[in-house]
Amino acid sequence: MSTLGQTGRLIGLGTGPGDPELLTVKAVRYLAQADVVTFFAKRGSRGNARAIVDAHMRPEMIELPLIYPVTTEIDKDHGDYTSAINSFYEDSSKAVEEHLAQGRTLVVLSEGDPLFYGSYMHLHVRLAHRFPTEVVPGVTAMSGCWSATGLPIVQGDDILSILPGTLPEDVLLRRLRDTDAAVIMKVGRNLPKIRRALDQAGKLGRAMYVERGTMANMAITPLADKADDVAPYFSIVLVPGWAGKPGESPLGALE
Amino acid sequence: MSTLGQTGRLIGLGTGPGDPELLTVKAVRYLAQADVVTFFAKRGSRGNARAIVDAHMRPEMIELPLIYPVTTEIDKDHGDYTSAINSFYEDSSKAVEEHLAQGRTLVVLSEGDPLFYGSYMHLHVRLAHRFPTEVVPGVTAMSGCWSATGLPIVQGDDILSILPGTLPEDVLLRRLRDTDAAVIMKVGRNLPKIRRALDQAGKLGRAMYVERGTMANMAITPLADKADDVAPYFSIVLVPGWAGKPGESPLGALE
Repeated sequence: MSTLGQTGRLIGLGTGPGDPELLTVKAVRYLAQADVVTFFAKRGSRGNARAIVDAHMRPEMIELPLIYPVTTEIDKDHGDYTSAINSFYEDSSKAVEEHLAQGRTLVVLSEGDPLFYGSYMHLHVRLAHRFPTEVVPGVTAMSGCWSATGLPIVQGDDILSILPGTLPEDVLLRRLRDTDAAVIMKVGRNLPKIRRALDQAGKLGRAMYVERGTMANMAITPLADKADDVAPYFSIVLVPGWAGKPGESPLGALE
Repeated sequence: MSTLGQTGRLIGLGTGPGDPELLTVKAVRYLAQADVVTFFAKRGSRGNARAIVDAHMRPEMIELPLIYPVTTEIDKDHGDYTSAINSFYEDSSKAVEEHLAQGRTLVVLSEGDPLFYGSYMHLHVRLAHRFPTEVVPGVTAMSGCWSATGLPIVQGDDILSILPGTLPEDVLLRRLRDTDAAVIMKVGRNLPKIRRALDQAGKLGRAMYVERGTMANMAITPLADKADDVAPYFSIVLVPGWAGKPGESPLGALE
């Protein structure tokens, strides 16, 4: 429903963690209204967010993939990276703006939740003050993971620390020592470092490793039992805060 | 669809933060299958979670409200509190178990996400190892709040600390000083203490106060501009990690 003469609408749309049934009712409604569907992806892959909404795509929709110029695992302190990624977000923002200026409703797919470590925010800060904008929150990957494992992650006065696995080992160690519960995001090639930090913090035995959370090929294993250090970038490590009581197991039966 | 002779199913169901459209497609499907709908509530109120699913209730559903014996704001270190709340969870678990033993599908409504500070976990740890159980993750209140404000909460290597407002002031201060981004839950009567800790940590100017996030009567205000200290228990304070760049505003236009 292109609306020429009207102002375009920008919608940051959380797709949830992977299972298409974890889309919200609102996300489904906005997909049905969208003229343009945009998403960030690596070269050669359409990405998880686009796969999640597959059943909601219509032939008349315009697809606008935004392909990262570099991999997500390059050294971020490198000047070339910063420069390349900044021009990429500028160019992406201009490509999106052209559609908004035509009066189109444009949805930016965002795996999990758009403003929680999502690339959508780089479009949001460039465009939200100039076009009507709405952010549709989504179920985060971490919620999907702890629900799949049945681990109560935090209760009562528990403090939860959310830590990117890209942090230096000493920072991870200090943070892991000083928290009730933790979620470690962006695991990938950082797994050996994460494992060492958890071990030194005395929390390796409580850590659960989750790969492709809520997707058909999900894998869950206590991190201490994982024999190799091979992990996709978007796998997650959970350290639940639940201390346990006699007769109470934090580990529920899995479906 | 009562299934006599079959084993009952326990479903911890995240209802999302308040807007009924933020239910997931899976939550809607399980509500359509449920024989029994259970929810925790304060005396005299049916609670937010039950209100969120109102449109999905059917006359033949059994409603099983679990009414807290004490208010959520009582001093938790008090022995009477611990004793009362433990027997309450034991009794609640037994009431749920009776339905499961009849082969019924029982849904436990949980505002936000069931295993993220939710009372559902007290049933989960008592029953999940004995009955087929599934946890349906939900959009958390904090996701609903930062999406409504349009604030990118974390990006890149940002650390996010999730802090119950019930923590002592010195703990809050130390944690707020030592994090990129923060979410302060369970605000309520803790607001003056939270405000002082944020001020001392030099982060009051970045803090956003959100009341009844995503609900029809939501209120959003920079905390520094909030004139009174009146706050519902479930209001939230957000301290975004996004540092901002020249020409980029972290504050998007609101719908």
